[in-house]
Amino acid sequence: MEFSIAQAAKAARIASRQIAKLSAVQKETLLKDIAQRMLAQTDGIIAANKQDLSAGRENNLDDAMLDRLLLTPERIQKIAHAVNDIAAQADPVGSIEHMQQMPSGIQVGKMRIPLGVIAMIYESRPNVTIDAAALCLKAGNAVILRGGKEALHSNLALAECISFALDKNGLDPAAVVVVPNPDRAVMNELMTLNQDIDLIIPRGGEGLIRFVSENSRIPVIQHYKGVCHLYVDDAADESKALNLLKNGKTQRTGVCNSLETLLVHQDIAPTFMLKVRALFDEFKVKVHACERSLGYFENAALASEDDWHAEYLAMEIAVRIVDDFDAAIEHIETYSSGHTEVIATQDFSRAQAFIRTLNSAVVMANASSRFSDGGELGLGAEIGISTSKLHAYGPMGAESLTTQKFIVLGDGEVRA
Amino acid sequence: MEFSIAQAAKAARIASRQIAKLSAVQKETLLKDIAQRMLAQTDGIIAANKQDLSAGRENNLDDAMLDRLLLTPERIQKIAHAVNDIAAQADPVGSIEHMQQMPSGIQVGKMRIPLGVIAMIYESRPNVTIDAAALCLKAGNAVILRGGKEALHSNLALAECISFALDKNGLDPAAVVVVPNPDRAVMNELMTLNQDIDLIIPRGGEGLIRFVSENSRIPVIQHYKGVCHLYVDDAADESKALNLLKNGKTQRTGVCNSLETLLVHQDIAPTFMLKVRALFDEFKVKVHACERSLGYFENAALASEDDWHAEYLAMEIAVRIVDDFDAAIEHIETYSSGHTEVIATQDFSRAQAFIRTLNSAVVMANASSRFSDGGELGLGAEIGISTSKLHAYGPMGAESLTTQKFIVLGDGEVRA
Repeated sequence: MEFSIAQAAKAARIASRQIAKLSAVQKETLLKDIAQRMLAQTDGIIAANKQDLSAGRENNLDDAMLDRLLLTPERIQKIAHAVNDIAAQADPVGSIEHMQQMPSGIQVGKMRIPLGVIAMIYESRPNVTIDAAALCLKAGNAVILRGGKEALHSNLALAECISFALDKNGLDPAAVVVVPNPDRAVMNELMTLNQDIDLIIPRGGEGLIRFVSENSRIPVIQHYKGVCHLYVDDAADESKALNLLKNGKTQRTGVCNSLETLLVHQDIAPTFMLKVRALFDEFKVKVHACERSLGYFENAALASEDDWHAEYLAMEIAVRIVDDFDAAIEHIETYSSGHTEVIATQDFSRAQAFIRTLNSAVVMANASSRFSDGGELGLGAEIGISTSKLHAYGPMGAESLTTQKFIVLGDGEVRA
Repeated sequence: MEFSIAQAAKAARIASRQIAKLSAVQKETLLKDIAQRMLAQTDGIIAANKQDLSAGRENNLDDAMLDRLLLTPERIQKIAHAVNDIAAQADPVGSIEHMQQMPSGIQVGKMRIPLGVIAMIYESRPNVTIDAAALCLKAGNAVILRGGKEALHSNLALAECISFALDKNGLDPAAVVVVPNPDRAVMNELMTLNQDIDLIIPRGGEGLIRFVSENSRIPVIQHYKGVCHLYVDDAADESKALNLLKNGKTQRTGVCNSLETLLVHQDIAPTFMLKVRALFDEFKVKVHACERSLGYFENAALASEDDWHAEYLAMEIAVRIVDDFDAAIEHIETYSSGHTEVIATQDFSRAQAFIRTLNSAVVMANASSRFSDGGELGLGAEIGISTSKLHAYGPMGAESLTTQKFIVLGDGEVRA
């Protein structure tokens, strides 16, 4: 029988009710069983992965892509450990907040509940299949996983581990769907199924995310660029500020929480910029400098308007000297991608004002932008980062895959 | 110069930064000034309203529509009082939750912030212009108000009160836009402006809401039907249950939180249904009964599948006798519109199970469905009700017009 995404989504909707009712212990057992099955099936998963890799080589995928695709016994172990970590997290479902008595006599509170059915649309990395399934199940949801064509054999082998565990726990395997024919047509149909899918989380390039956002009838979590700013205030501790710059720009460059723009207060520039230059020389960071800062660097290019918008994802940075705190805020409000902004300052009021004023998803005083990550912010595993404010904002963990309903306890009260 | 919705939205985006920074006291003053101006301008508002009313009569609007359109000195006073109530509410912006120390040494918490720019799309009632503007401003947002053509003069007169107050407080009047040419073309363009508008809240018929949901590139709050269920368990207190039924079905019929379906446990039916019949006879409630309950009523029609989906909004109800608690849950999960569900029972475990299992926006034990309202649930004024789970779920007050950003306080920590 041919696979129908509409039927799979309908079945997932029905199965989602069963998953929503699972207790914390039942969900923990289910996830541990998934991890255990993965470890037991390592050979089979690797054989399936080899099929994807050889097809990838035939299709001339580049090395980075092939590396993202690659599964090894160590990588499989790491994924299984991550699932066990998610299993051990507190249950995000069922907590009751703000219970209070109303003048009418009823008690009103909000209880956390699963969203229902979540669809993930992603590209090559097969680990997303397991990570996303584990997080969605932990939050009591069914999930539809539409991975990349190039990882299909790997994804189906991983899917078997999930259905095995669902089955072992007496649960409907329809709760986790791995799309067996991940072409454009399926994606287009999926985006119309707003009766049976509550949320789409796309993970991949900006093109994919824009395409889904503009064509979906289902709400979409958007994650575009991470143009993270570090503003070094005149009241900064220069050595702390330099450390933040070094960690933010040079530790890893290909990630969305790395720094892309450095703003420096004009009064600290004469001393601080010399240290910046030495750092950039050491790490061979290519600099796009504003007119005022250009003279501090040997081989810097003059920054254009495009540089203030740029997410380099490389050993490359835009640098601007600003008149004062307000000019830094103005720059960030104009060019921010809504991801992460950092101030380096020892001045209490400035730190407070920075944190209050800027409304990016993560706003920091005296900490590295590299902490802008679900794990580092205490969410446990991360299913994505939202740079749009609707539903979730910033790194998303299991709680972002839930919502809250109102609960009302009465003793026969009626409305006057 | 012709009005451009794209330019207005861009100006609202810029003005939203100013509104986001207002203190609680500044927002309170602003809202009180709007209320005061409305009272001072009563004559002018009523003159403008008369223009809408006479045009409405010429266009043969029905009496209900004309009544929704009508402003009187008393109604204007009531709207102004509602604005003063919103002014007096606690500021939804700025609160910090869950601040905690991470192993890396950084402190991480979540701070509540405005969404940015909100667009309301609504029909005849001019009070929405003021209510929505007041709630959006209270939550620190700019707002675009696209009301109905038939209320345009009234809306523009009310808009003047808002710009007057913004101006008096030294604020950019671009923060509140009342669309002066509310035709389809403007709405179509508005729905594409996802760079400058963060959320659309449509209020009106199901057709309007579906049209916006299916065509918008901006997230949309959806509120479709309210098919509210009352399940009378065999462990119910019959007199309390009857009161809930009376209040839920007969107090007001044209509202989304009135009851549309009554489910009765088979063991309590022989006694309880006689009381139900007497109640329905007294209030002339038209009954659509299942086969098992048909015999209890004199003039009931046999319920069809459509009746279980029906939102009658009238003295009309669907009635079904169910085998047990599980059958009641099954019925509600199948036919629920996600709005409000009520159980009448004195059994603790059943009440608990009902509240845990059903994931409608509001789930109640022993309280009237009519409490499913922002005011009664403690939210203060209500900007709408969401029956979709994304972003907000259930009655929405000022807090639903905000989101949370992560804040990080460090002392120079970097990622290892």
